[in-house]
Amino acid sequence: MSEANERVTDVFDRAPFISLLGVELTGVGDDWVETTLTVTDQLRQQHGFAHAGVVTTLADHTAGAAASTAISDGQSVLTVDFSIHLLRPASGDRLTCRGEIVKAGRTLIVTQADVLAEGKLCARYTGTMAVVDRAI
Amino acid sequence: MSEANERVTDVFDRAPFISLLGVELTGVGDDWVETTLTVTDQLRQQHGFAHAGVVTTLADHTAGAAASTAISDGQSVLTVDFSIHLLRPASGDRLTCRGEIVKAGRTLIVTQADVLAEGKLCARYTGTMAVVDRAI
Amino acid sequence: MSEANERVTDVFDRAPFISLLGVELTGVGDDWVETTLTVTDQLRQQHGFAHAGVVTTLADHTAGAAASTAISDGQSVLTVDFSIHLLRPASGDRLTCRGEIVKAGRTLIVTQADVLAEGKLCARYTGTMAVVDRAI
Amino acid sequence: MSEANERVTDVFDRAPFISLLGVELTGVGDDWVETTLTVTDQLRQQHGFAHAGVVTTLADHTAGAAASTAISDGQSVLTVDFSIHLLRPASGDRLTCRGEIVKAGRTLIVTQADVLAEGKLCARYTGTMAVVDRAI
Repeated sequence: MSEANERVTDVFDRAPFISLLGVELTGVGDDWVETTLTVTDQLRQQHGFAHAGVVTTLADHTAGAAASTAISDGQSVLTVDFSIHLLRPASGDRLTCRGEIVKAGRTLIVTQADVLAEGKLCARYTGTMAVVDRAI
Repeated sequence: MSEANERVTDVFDRAPFISLLGVELTGVGDDWVETTLTVTDQLRQQHGFAHAGVVTTLADHTAGAAASTAISDGQSVLTVDFSIHLLRPASGDRLTCRGEIVKAGRTLIVTQADVLAEGKLCARYTGTMAVVDRAI
Repeated sequence: MSEANERVTDVFDRAPFISLLGVELTGVGDDWVETTLTVTDQLRQQHGFAHAGVVTTLADHTAGAAASTAISDGQSVLTVDFSIHLLRPASGDRLTCRGEIVKAGRTLIVTQADVLAEGKLCARYTGTMAVVDRAI
Repeated sequence: MSEANERVTDVFDRAPFISLLGVELTGVGDDWVETTLTVTDQLRQQHGFAHAGVVTTLADHTAGAAASTAISDGQSVLTVDFSIHLLRPASGDRLTCRGEIVKAGRTLIVTQADVLAEGKLCARYTGTMAVVDRAI
């Protein structure tokens, strides 16, 4: 496994909240990451859809993992800020997400992530990550 | 309890993900809501701080509850989009949040929410909510 | 010229600030609009790049025009909120922009716009537009 | 005049686009800046209100000036990203703006700016600025 892939995998294994949600890594490329999540009952809001907080966490985590493909060993990324548009209710039992790097600088990485529910785009996320000089 | 307060309380009781996180309502006013959350281990990220997804969910939920103080019976609010700035790591065992209405229109309500950890501002949220004509 | 195209053209002809900046419409499709702008000296900031306000205005206007391809005669669109990431200095003498609809609803339209300078992506914009029942 | 004030004043004098718009500095404090702008006809949109691009430029410039109160000599600030909520049409002949620092870090400064038209809040802006090691 490449160094970049190890960094990405680490991000998924070591955050208890990500384990609680059940976010799974399904693909990693040069500047992108794909994930999926099974929507259990405890992740829903009052209408039965996946909660916006779940959708947002999935997007932010996947975007951060995508950003981590562009950093060096001994560095990690932190989300500085993001905006998200919730386009449709997150229906169904499974969410998928693809996060990509829009622009990688030395100290800041801008990312985008799309969340799909039942094959439809339900959220678009854009985030700014800071590259920090410490391992995760 | 006023109609507005009932609407706000309802929002907290009926969303499984909010119960999972343990978000508690601590105050309601004319155009604001205050909440708190105990940071259990499962809500943390890899460095031991509350996960950004937890902070964001708390902010969005509190802001939505604040927005719901301005609607009529039979209506509810949905988050359209938001941006959040994560200013500091969310350290400690308890987060508090205050959400307020910035501007309430007939169909859209703009809100702001601040999340504090150990008395320091750790996140500022600004969101746009849509007023929809159905009860929660 | 189709009704949609007339609406888009109108948006460019009737806003004095857009004329001042010199934004030109270069293409219109079903859910997208393309524009260009010559960066005169008065549109620059202190380092000689196009000012962030110019880049942002171009993005917002182009995104709004894209949104206006999806509305009916007698309606217009208003920007509710947007976020923009300024990825690189806007160098050179000409900016180009492509705005697209991400999701068109009955009352809200979410858009994205990319601004290019010298062939490189220098800004990405995501905006929420409200559809209002009045002609421009 | 203090070093910080000189830096702020400089930002207003040396950007041609800011001169074109006629943004004037009206106050500077430790972590805030206030500005005003006369809405001439060329700064309007098709309904006669100040164009969203004008409101946004005023907010971004004022927020950037506020951020520049917190940096050292030989540094300057660049906007990385921002979000803005356009709450009301910017009516009348004069806009005023107050920009403040929300959180100043060593390399990033988060700011907020409010724009008022006829005494009413018409836009709220939140931006992330990068501190760069060069004079303006």
